[in-house]
Amino acid sequence: MTDWYAGLDTTLDHVWRLLSRAPVDRRSPLRTPVMATVGADGLPNARVVVLRAAARSAGILEVYTDKRSKKVNDLEISAFATFCVWVPKADLQIRIKTIANILSGSEVLPLWQSLSEPARRVYGGVPAPGVLLAHPSEFGARPDPAALALLRCVISEIETLHLGADLHRRARFSRNDDWQGSWCAP
Amino acid sequence: MTDWYAGLDTTLDHVWRLLSRAPVDRRSPLRTPVMATVGADGLPNARVVVLRAAARSAGILEVYTDKRSKKVNDLEISAFATFCVWVPKADLQIRIKTIANILSGSEVLPLWQSLSEPARRVYGGVPAPGVLLAHPSEFGARPDPAALALLRCVISEIETLHLGADLHRRARFSRNDDWQGSWCAP
Repeated sequence: MTDWYAGLDTTLDHVWRLLSRAPVDRRSPLRTPVMATVGADGLPNARVVVLRAAARSAGILEVYTDKRSKKVNDLEISAFATFCVWVPKADLQIRIKTIANILSGSEVLPLWQSLSEPARRVYGGVPAPGVLLAHPSEFGARPDPAALALLRCVISEIETLHLGADLHRRARFSRNDDWQGSWCAP
Repeated sequence: MTDWYAGLDTTLDHVWRLLSRAPVDRRSPLRTPVMATVGADGLPNARVVVLRAAARSAGILEVYTDKRSKKVNDLEISAFATFCVWVPKADLQIRIKTIANILSGSEVLPLWQSLSEPARRVYGGVPAPGVLLAHPSEFGARPDPAALALLRCVISEIETLHLGADLHRRARFSRNDDWQGSWCAP
């Protein structure tokens, strides 16, 4: 059997195998990738997010967040979100460029209804994210469906870097190119 | 003894304890943070880097890279680099905003001379990073001191998020404020 990293197709298959599992696997590093955005000031912002869904057919990733968070603010101005994660067991870096659609209000009501009581507590705390506090205990949960936002991130490019014992393999796959992929210098 | 995350000073002390250890601890997640930059196209870019030094007194982080890499190109246009890492054992997210100085040529000759032969092989491969290849084996190492760049990243802000069993504690420390720090809503 040939190793997955030897071919372009098998590399992309492996990425999607890892991505598909991640939302339901608490130990997967892909469940908590870093998401980078560009702030209103033009500066890079980055934070860890929880990957809630990954669908190969549509080429999308989904993340939930508080609608009042800085990342939503960033994405309202510049919709580009780039994900990055290192997968130790696969010696693999995965980077994914996306364009994020921000869904909220009536669009996410079915999602809100599907969330458990503890899960809802993450959306709608008082005061809003980032507001100064004299002490962390001043913050209180106030679950509010209006504070839930679903980021539906449409993938434009996936880039992999596999650090093999023999070779470093870097590949780039883009939607424009129908995901056929190409190798490039690491 | 009070837990480190209970106070602002002790939180910042803990971050620096972790950062200082990271360059020499292969198992530290802080040794391989994600670094986000903004591309020439205004889009966010992110990749895992290796933290080579962290100095509290000057408030800097150091990373080595190939001078021909996309990240150097990004930083030549917009010098802002944001680091992000999740530290599982501490239940802690650390985000660090910096302004990067790119050192190369004669400025990094002493560094080049201090690197081992295998370490040097990472800088100066042919063709340059990102160039298309028919196959990964077409890439070859060609160690070249002119390809070494040292990113000296001057920290402007450190933001922490501790997910405690009792409370989520988010704190922000900035150089402007002489690192005294303040709590804010998570």
